[in-house]
Amino acid sequence: AREFGLDENLVASYDVTTRLAIAAGLLALRDAGIPLVMKHKPTTTGGRLPLGYRLPDSMADETGIIFASAFPGYEQLVQEMERRQRDELLAAQIEQLKKIVDEVGPLHAVTRRLEELKKLRGEPFGLDRKFIFRALSFGHAQFAELVGARGPNVQVNAACSSTTLAVSMAADWIRLGRCRRVLVVGADDITNPTLAPWLVAACWPPERLPARRSWNWRRCPSTGAATA
Amino acid sequence: AREFGLDENLVASYDVTTRLAIAAGLLALRDAGIPLVMKHKPTTTGGRLPLGYRLPDSMADETGIIFASAFPGYEQLVQEMERRQRDELLAAQIEQLKKIVDEVGPLHAVTRRLEELKKLRGEPFGLDRKFIFRALSFGHAQFAELVGARGPNVQVNAACSSTTLAVSMAADWIRLGRCRRVLVVGADDITNPTLAPWLVAACWPPERLPARRSWNWRRCPSTGAATA
Repeated sequence: AREFGLDENLVASYDVTTRLAIAAGLLALRDAGIPLVMKHKPTTTGGRLPLGYRLPDSMADETGIIFASAFPGYEQLVQEMERRQRDELLAAQIEQLKKIVDEVGPLHAVTRRLEELKKLRGEPFGLDRKFIFRALSFGHAQFAELVGARGPNVQVNAACSSTTLAVSMAADWIRLGRCRRVLVVGADDITNPTLAPWLVAACWPPERLPARRSWNWRRCPSTGAATA
Repeated sequence: AREFGLDENLVASYDVTTRLAIAAGLLALRDAGIPLVMKHKPTTTGGRLPLGYRLPDSMADETGIIFASAFPGYEQLVQEMERRQRDELLAAQIEQLKKIVDEVGPLHAVTRRLEELKKLRGEPFGLDRKFIFRALSFGHAQFAELVGARGPNVQVNAACSSTTLAVSMAADWIRLGRCRRVLVVGADDITNPTLAPWLVAACWPPERLPARRSWNWRRCPSTGAATA
């Protein structure tokens, strides 16, 4: 967040693929020599409120974005599901111990464990109302909002050829006059600790599978972001 | 599966969005008057092995597919995570009871419950090696394989405007000669019992939220498939 001058709370709400896409997109704009300029909003008292760095007005309408990603939004979904799972697991254990206390009386070993579990559980799980916007693949739209790109905007997936296909689409858009420039950003990260146990582990023969969470999944080379 | 003459095991391995996309795609081919013909493979003994119904050879190379979907593959991911969660929950409860037996001796109420839980758990959870192909958005490729469409092939997402955007892409492909016809299929289903608690519930104000699994999510009108 700091390296790119972005709000930390905003970045925290992005899926990992969105974060990669935005970082790669900002670097691509720099490489292409396209400057971002500070936009302001006039206030009712005649002042100017800074809105943030955006594409120059002359470029905004004519800049499209294609986000190539095969697993966008999955990290947020899995993280949230694991957070609920942890809560439900503790709740089930607490219920079980309560039942034992009811049936056989307040055994010290049981009541002590019960108190520990209640402390461990803390606040019950609640789903954030904005969750759908984190789990939905939104990197293309979030990046467009951030830099003020108002041209065509989409996420595409063709598995490993997603970015190649995105580049051909970008060429189509320019040839047909849908816009004058397209930012193509590709990003996926399935070897992070959240997704690797699901998406990488599944590709391994079970007898060679390392224990969940005990292995450095990053040794699999499938994290990355690219721009064109 | 039966209505469309498809293999039931194959259909079971598809995500719900893929199932909707394939059904809508087959109906669209029929509406467009494009026949599927039985393809055969020559055998070494000079016979012919039926491969299934495919596009006529004269059309296969020139038929593209665009699958418009905002939440493809999510159903499979959530189902598999809930299957693991159930297993881990039972395992944790079993562990907890074993510890109590170790500490306070074999109380009847506890050992009885322990046996029940072990029976309930059954086989420990194992991740299917093909899981990544179910969770990855693959409807476009699976449908292409099924009907033998060898033109350009992609899944696109632009949230609620996914299908509209897909139709414009299809027009681009035909205008630029990338192929002669494009099957555009749109499918999403976030109100099924697996996904609704995550994707629909998140949009509701918490005080009006119905209890998980106790409500007919289908009253929310967001399941569907469309073709063009």
